[in-house]
Amino acid sequence: MKWRSFIIIVIMILAWQANYARQKKYVLVIHGGAGTILKKNMTAEKEAAYRKVLTQALQAGYAVIKDGKKSLDAVETAIRVMEDSPLFNAGKGSVFTNEGKNEMDAAIMDGSNLMAGSVAGVTTIKNPISAARAVMEKSEHVMMTGPGAEKFAKSSGVEIVSPDYFYTPERWEGLKKAKKEDSTKAILDHGNKKSGKLGTINKDYKFGTVGAVALDKAGNLAAGTSTGGMTNKKFGRVGDAPIIGAGTYANNKTVAVSCTGWGEFYIRNVVAYDVSAMIEYGKANLQKAAQTAIDKVGQLGGDGGLIALNVQGEMAMPFNTAGMYRAAITENGEVELLIYK
Amino acid sequence: MKWRSFIIIVIMILAWQANYARQKKYVLVIHGGAGTILKKNMTAEKEAAYRKVLTQALQAGYAVIKDGKKSLDAVETAIRVMEDSPLFNAGKGSVFTNEGKNEMDAAIMDGSNLMAGSVAGVTTIKNPISAARAVMEKSEHVMMTGPGAEKFAKSSGVEIVSPDYFYTPERWEGLKKAKKEDSTKAILDHGNKKSGKLGTINKDYKFGTVGAVALDKAGNLAAGTSTGGMTNKKFGRVGDAPIIGAGTYANNKTVAVSCTGWGEFYIRNVVAYDVSAMIEYGKANLQKAAQTAIDKVGQLGGDGGLIALNVQGEMAMPFNTAGMYRAAITENGEVELLIYK
Repeated sequence: MKWRSFIIIVIMILAWQANYARQKKYVLVIHGGAGTILKKNMTAEKEAAYRKVLTQALQAGYAVIKDGKKSLDAVETAIRVMEDSPLFNAGKGSVFTNEGKNEMDAAIMDGSNLMAGSVAGVTTIKNPISAARAVMEKSEHVMMTGPGAEKFAKSSGVEIVSPDYFYTPERWEGLKKAKKEDSTKAILDHGNKKSGKLGTINKDYKFGTVGAVALDKAGNLAAGTSTGGMTNKKFGRVGDAPIIGAGTYANNKTVAVSCTGWGEFYIRNVVAYDVSAMIEYGKANLQKAAQTAIDKVGQLGGDGGLIALNVQGEMAMPFNTAGMYRAAITENGEVELLIYK
Repeated sequence: MKWRSFIIIVIMILAWQANYARQKKYVLVIHGGAGTILKKNMTAEKEAAYRKVLTQALQAGYAVIKDGKKSLDAVETAIRVMEDSPLFNAGKGSVFTNEGKNEMDAAIMDGSNLMAGSVAGVTTIKNPISAARAVMEKSEHVMMTGPGAEKFAKSSGVEIVSPDYFYTPERWEGLKKAKKEDSTKAILDHGNKKSGKLGTINKDYKFGTVGAVALDKAGNLAAGTSTGGMTNKKFGRVGDAPIIGAGTYANNKTVAVSCTGWGEFYIRNVVAYDVSAMIEYGKANLQKAAQTAIDKVGQLGGDGGLIALNVQGEMAMPFNTAGMYRAAITENGEVELLIYK
């Protein structure tokens, strides 16, 4: 009887260890935005195009990690690939503001020392994520905005382009459509005497961001996020992406997080740092903390998603929208790429 | 023997209750910035002037609470008094940027519903805290920057002034001094080939912010912060004050917080929300959470202070600088005002 118990315990331990060994260790997770992304609205060509760029971004970042370079380099590399594609609302594919401009935001954070950098409202920087990194590494500051940020980026050797580099016909059409809906809303609001608030009617105008979280061979985490913000945005609006703690956060002790979604709710909930705090103070596991943070966004009436990665290589990619462009790669180069729920 | 134990327990309970009743219930706490504020550098006149304005701000905010109005109103009222004084680095007394401008930041948050508003880099708004409130109440957004924020504020009825309203001879002298030190530092750095970083040599140029946290009769918390930023700042630098979670946060469930200090460290540590998270997830009490947040800033190499208030009317005002202008008032109108350690 005694021996039987002993054998059962040994088997349980072996089974547990085997399971542990099977746990994949992820080293890079990326997202290309969350929103009303439905299979029925997607052509095969469009889906293939998204899959191609997401895979390129993932592979480019993975090569950096495999080379033994920093997680910061992997995050910057992966995001630059997505910024250079017209498909995502960041860099080249950024949406237009109400005034017909492209105003971009980005942030990056180093989990090994809590250094961080961000830029907001920049219009001439080809890769805002690299400008954010320059702010972190080449200045005493964390956040720079507008023309001042551009001046600094230029002096730091970050590539500057003419604002018309960011023109894409799809985004210009998007602005025209948003303006039309906005004026319809204004008429409706006036008719009903209901709302003095300013804003757009179409929730999807709030979405579209790219981000990455990475874990390097030295065991350091990093996170980064880049966005063109909201279609038809006014008044120098800034979302969560460039705000450390809201859209972007990394800390080796806890987790690296990049968010995408309706930025206002992410700022109010301090989402990225909230995931970290639930892990550090609330002893939540990564999955639970990430999911709870998204649930809290939903409870306030917001939506979106996030990606999270810890030093054990565990990852989470929760969202409460119809879809989120997301992909992850393990230390062995195994790729997972998903778009819909 | 049994009876003796019983009597001792009863006495202990009564003593505890009496002590509990003696606990002061604070309804408004304000700060006017932290930094190298030393008694030996202060004239009696200057100290009296600071005491006068701090008392005025406290009394104005207290009158609002006593009237049964919202904690948000009390926060806005108290901060406006300090913004209108040339003594504090906010509103009228804002410091100058490297380009000789006054670029102000402010944020406000409602602990009852987690609504928040903020403005950054505004140059023509007499009371930035009121612009932050307009963003919260009259737009769908949380954060607006630069000329866009000013345009919105104007359209919302917030008072606009000419940029020269913010000129004060003291701050202009401060800029001249900072520039001189900066050029000395540049020469030194060049000579030593030590640092490619940009920044000022004098830590005190990073300080000066005003803030308030309040608790109203309905049991709702609010927090607000307003600042002129850093003397000689460049490149559209933004500090922690307008960043929800970093310099400002309020949540009825946990705490209302306003920070003042070396903003970069407050952003990297997500200080205001960190106090809340330690209370919510870590079950820390208010004093412990507030002190730990400041200790963490110190561990990274930063300094400053914060004020915190919860729905029980408990407050904390920790700082790790030589001094912090700070004051609090109880529900009975009892004032506490301190400047030095």
